[in-house]
Amino acid sequence: MAVHTAKLDQLMERTWREVLDGSRLVRWIREGSSDRRLYALYLIETFHYASHNAKNQALVGSALQGSSMKHLQYMKYCFKHALEEVGHEHMAYHDLRAIGLDRPFEALPPPLPMTEAFIAYLYWISAHGNPVQRLGYSYWAETSYAFITPVMQQAAKHMRLEPQQMTFFVKHADIDDDHAADVKHVISLVATEPDDEAAIARVLETTLRLTGHMLEDIAREYERLVAGESPSSAFLNDLVKTP
Amino acid sequence: MAVHTAKLDQLMERTWREVLDGSRLVRWIREGSSDRRLYALYLIETFHYASHNAKNQALVGSALQGSSMKHLQYMKYCFKHALEEVGHEHMAYHDLRAIGLDRPFEALPPPLPMTEAFIAYLYWISAHGNPVQRLGYSYWAETSYAFITPVMQQAAKHMRLEPQQMTFFVKHADIDDDHAADVKHVISLVATEPDDEAAIARVLETTLRLTGHMLEDIAREYERLVAGESPSSAFLNDLVKTP
Amino acid sequence: MAVHTAKLDQLMERTWREVLDGSRLVRWIREGSSDRRLYALYLIETFHYASHNAKNQALVGSALQGSSMKHLQYMKYCFKHALEEVGHEHMAYHDLRAIGLDRPFEALPPPLPMTEAFIAYLYWISAHGNPVQRLGYSYWAETSYAFITPVMQQAAKHMRLEPQQMTFFVKHADIDDDHAADVKHVISLVATEPDDEAAIARVLETTLRLTGHMLEDIAREYERLVAGESPSSAFLNDLVKTP
Amino acid sequence: MAVHTAKLDQLMERTWREVLDGSRLVRWIREGSSDRRLYALYLIETFHYASHNAKNQALVGSALQGSSMKHLQYMKYCFKHALEEVGHEHMAYHDLRAIGLDRPFEALPPPLPMTEAFIAYLYWISAHGNPVQRLGYSYWAETSYAFITPVMQQAAKHMRLEPQQMTFFVKHADIDDDHAADVKHVISLVATEPDDEAAIARVLETTLRLTGHMLEDIAREYERLVAGESPSSAFLNDLVKTP
Repeated sequence: MAVHTAKLDQLMERTWREVLDGSRLVRWIREGSSDRRLYALYLIETFHYASHNAKNQALVGSALQGSSMKHLQYMKYCFKHALEEVGHEHMAYHDLRAIGLDRPFEALPPPLPMTEAFIAYLYWISAHGNPVQRLGYSYWAETSYAFITPVMQQAAKHMRLEPQQMTFFVKHADIDDDHAADVKHVISLVATEPDDEAAIARVLETTLRLTGHMLEDIAREYERLVAGESPSSAFLNDLVKTP
Repeated sequence: MAVHTAKLDQLMERTWREVLDGSRLVRWIREGSSDRRLYALYLIETFHYASHNAKNQALVGSALQGSSMKHLQYMKYCFKHALEEVGHEHMAYHDLRAIGLDRPFEALPPPLPMTEAFIAYLYWISAHGNPVQRLGYSYWAETSYAFITPVMQQAAKHMRLEPQQMTFFVKHADIDDDHAADVKHVISLVATEPDDEAAIARVLETTLRLTGHMLEDIAREYERLVAGESPSSAFLNDLVKTP
Repeated sequence: MAVHTAKLDQLMERTWREVLDGSRLVRWIREGSSDRRLYALYLIETFHYASHNAKNQALVGSALQGSSMKHLQYMKYCFKHALEEVGHEHMAYHDLRAIGLDRPFEALPPPLPMTEAFIAYLYWISAHGNPVQRLGYSYWAETSYAFITPVMQQAAKHMRLEPQQMTFFVKHADIDDDHAADVKHVISLVATEPDDEAAIARVLETTLRLTGHMLEDIAREYERLVAGESPSSAFLNDLVKTP
Repeated sequence: MAVHTAKLDQLMERTWREVLDGSRLVRWIREGSSDRRLYALYLIETFHYASHNAKNQALVGSALQGSSMKHLQYMKYCFKHALEEVGHEHMAYHDLRAIGLDRPFEALPPPLPMTEAFIAYLYWISAHGNPVQRLGYSYWAETSYAFITPVMQQAAKHMRLEPQQMTFFVKHADIDDDHAADVKHVISLVATEPDDEAAIARVLETTLRLTGHMLEDIAREYERLVAGESPSSAFLNDLVKTP
């Protein structure tokens, strides 16, 4: 019983559109904001959730039960993919430094509430329920650059960001072309049970919408920062002090 | 604060000697038993614990916290090593088939009590306590062939086992030379805290002694089988019926 | 270092106001909606998250480490409170039946995405991080009836709900007076470390905002239901068919 | 499909006999050892495993899935029983102090290897596999005093222990009469699936045999202590220095 990737693609596109169109952060960028603090706030949350991706990906493999060939293929995918994701948070941290922040990563503010909810959900669906469901997250995450690139280009233009200040996006876009093919391949191999497509679709939608809530939290935090109400993010004001 | 591998080696050798000398299974083999049911019982337990090794190895990486270079190196080791261990239980199963059993692996008897205790302990020390401690298991597991080979040679001789009936040992011995060097290397990189050596030594000793208890459970099960008291292992009697 | 409950109260009131004022579901009720499907949709999500509360509450106690008197007091609180919460989802299910739905609880639709994110977050903060932080959830949950009662009274009036159709609220309001005092008492006993107040505040705010996202998902689901786009909730249309 | 408690009783009696008859510690006590260090070593291990019993008991309830009446009854049993077990390790610690040791409990030596394996196994079977299986541990633990009392009486006589130095046993024996009835009652209610009896029997036997390995580790540690080879237990020599 093969998964219909055309249906997943439709769901992904519809949900991405909702997320981007409903995001104040995206609107501000589209309207030409040149405030690099927006980018920095986004990189900090990216640093946080990215630091968990390899770990929750591996957890899926650790929780698998059985020794069938299908299980072993999926287990290998999980550990291989986890291995490739180790340390990607440092690309986001590199970009933070490249735009002028020199704080050690251990001293970054903790994740915002909706970033933590996103992280929590990824562990939850990795350790419980249908083992193939996390592929719904990989499905959109590995092809997200098509949706994000136009926004990033706007940001790059108005915030005058150089490629070496955007390595998380640039490098990820390259890496993720292969990953995206891997995801579709592994789905065709392991998501063969009747319930699998619905489980994948559910996680696809939920993780994408949680990303939307994370973007909205970044917008809230930006407003607090501008209003002088966020002591923990105040160090980002250094980015707008220089002429 | 470097770990003293000479001390770990001493502990390993002393504990191996205790385990082998205290094992009735080993004694029977050394005394020339030609009963392949002993080998089959051992392969079944090997199938069971081996099916968990990749999973509890990956769990160590999933439970790591922090983004320091040391952490990321160790995380990569965990996922890389997990990836390499996926499916090794099928070598044990292959050997079971090669000596004449044709039962599907899903229909093998469940693990014996002390095999399950061994498995449980590996998950416990992988998910809790000092994250480097599981290296104490890898430390001896990856060099175990030096200690086991003489026993296996005796078994091979008296049970007339061909190399293609001993692939778990033969192939593992090759694989594990590299792994053993990896373990020492990763210990030198990540086990740098004062408590790390004791934690590694503790797990080294405990896992080796639990292996001893597993061997003793195999001997008990063999006695029950011979006495006609083990319905779940009775299918192994096929191995001794043919002339 | 005592926790400032006055500060927690301020945070709770501000966040509750944001959640209620930002909720379309609440607005519809305040505007006099008489559509019981809104209530039913809310009860279904309540059934789902309530079925996890005892379990994630107990998890906090299971994850505690140490045998100090402070730890043991908190452990007792966790298991006692968990014991009291077992089965509360059946009050929500009772109310569903009381308004006319006769579907077995096993056949209710699965939780909506943001309900599942809420559940996932509760397990996450119960098993990881500062062990006292889940008290931030209990803090508002046990006094939530002050904030919800006016909305429920509106709903009761316009949807013509009898008390026996609102047992989850009515009984919970009684039970929770004691629980609220328990929460403040246990906070005074166990939240004595410098970081505890911030951890409690963080979880208070995040869980309340996730509840807001759950309410918004109920509004979305209602719109889909009305538009004929939700096969899984279509059985709720029975509630509006009778004259 | 009711569980045959007569069969469980037979298995328990046979396994207890094996454990006691195979234990050097028990033999030394039966032979009249007056060395209180044996008792102290036992109390230290008791302190350790007892400190986990409430936590792994609660974990069973946390891992249950479903809202059926049977599930909820079992969940209540788990949390109620967990609540009653909180802090029982302090009885063992009390007895250590009562025989003359005044070390804070935080400074006791860590658990011996087989005590830790026992603890690990209890968490494993509480969080994985058949949810009713942990009742196999409760089954014997709650009636163990019948088997242990004769040994304890010998120890009390030759080591001249007063009742206030044996509170863990004395109080537990009282408490556990009720608990034992509870265990049989809950088994009759919740262990109704065909596989349940085997799962309970398996855990009964395994935990009892792991207790035997723990007793053997105490004997080993005693030998090391007497031989001057255990720095971590050397403080127990105070017990034999006084005239």
